[in-house]
Amino acid sequence: MDYYGSQINALIEELSKLPGIGSKSAQRLAFHIINLPKEQAEKLSSTIIEARNKVRYCSCCCTLTDDELCPICKNPARNHKQIMVVENPRDLAAYEKTGRYEGVYHVLHGAISPSRGIGPADIRLKELMTRLAGDVDELIIATNSSLEGEATAMYISKLVKPAGIKLTRIASGVPVGGDLEYIDEVTLLRALEGRVLL
Amino acid sequence: MDYYGSQINALIEELSKLPGIGSKSAQRLAFHIINLPKEQAEKLSSTIIEARNKVRYCSCCCTLTDDELCPICKNPARNHKQIMVVENPRDLAAYEKTGRYEGVYHVLHGAISPSRGIGPADIRLKELMTRLAGDVDELIIATNSSLEGEATAMYISKLVKPAGIKLTRIASGVPVGGDLEYIDEVTLLRALEGRVLL
Repeated sequence: MDYYGSQINALIEELSKLPGIGSKSAQRLAFHIINLPKEQAEKLSSTIIEARNKVRYCSCCCTLTDDELCPICKNPARNHKQIMVVENPRDLAAYEKTGRYEGVYHVLHGAISPSRGIGPADIRLKELMTRLAGDVDELIIATNSSLEGEATAMYISKLVKPAGIKLTRIASGVPVGGDLEYIDEVTLLRALEGRVLL
Repeated sequence: MDYYGSQINALIEELSKLPGIGSKSAQRLAFHIINLPKEQAEKLSSTIIEARNKVRYCSCCCTLTDDELCPICKNPARNHKQIMVVENPRDLAAYEKTGRYEGVYHVLHGAISPSRGIGPADIRLKELMTRLAGDVDELIIATNSSLEGEATAMYISKLVKPAGIKLTRIASGVPVGGDLEYIDEVTLLRALEGRVLL
């Protein structure tokens, strides 16, 4: 299958290692990259290596950033006494896009999953406990509503409750705009259990 | 929307410039890359720049490769008197995957499209005519069966007919409007076998 020559094959191979990129997409991307102006290809290449090498964990909330503190932890306008616990930086981004949350975050980088061998010590729980020793009003648990996310929420709640901090969990139910007939039974049941007075 | 820090934002921005990569995919890819082992990120980065800078056009068939001649044009076992004209290197790859075509190729890098301002001088037609001055038995036109592909086939047929070379067009077993690279090998083979004299 050497009809492109080794350089192009090498690029296709590297690209197809990326998540969600199959062999057709990798080919398409490779030819796109090969046809880029030289300076654009160089920028893509150098951005990859710079991001990989300069990015670090925020010393406060553990999200990925490029400084000692991330832009949110650095921001004095945020409410630093309200902490939302999320599984990963993309979940943080999802809540930031709402533009309405004014507290700060704590990024666990994963969730407890005994079946995949991920225990409490493998996620950023120790760092969370250190933060809770300070001045905190509320801890909002916003892990995913998957098996692992729920297990993690449960674990954190058991860990934190003795400290007497206000502990909340984001609501789970039918998504806005969701059509009941396409929603799974577990979600429907949870939406029923979590029903609120109008 | 600066919640990641500038390095990560720069990487997300570069990745979302790639074709078929939306903002969610770009985020997912960026975090994947940031979490790669250092040497893997370096390999991805260097492969991009090497492929971009070392890849060139085959001096015979004009496909993208990394040597003076591509592996197919270099191969003495191929029938160099039978030339298949395709629009781009991915179409060449599609026919190579059938494993049954023993001739060589000519890659046009596009198709004639007056509406997009692409004329005969913008694709590798001059190079094709030069090759036809040599010893050629058959020219198989395998441009896509889109409007542009058909127009290009027609143009080539008018150009080549006076030279008295056997001229064929892959059969329209390929669905109208279909893009060669996404078509299954059986259909591609049937189209090859059913090619008709122009």
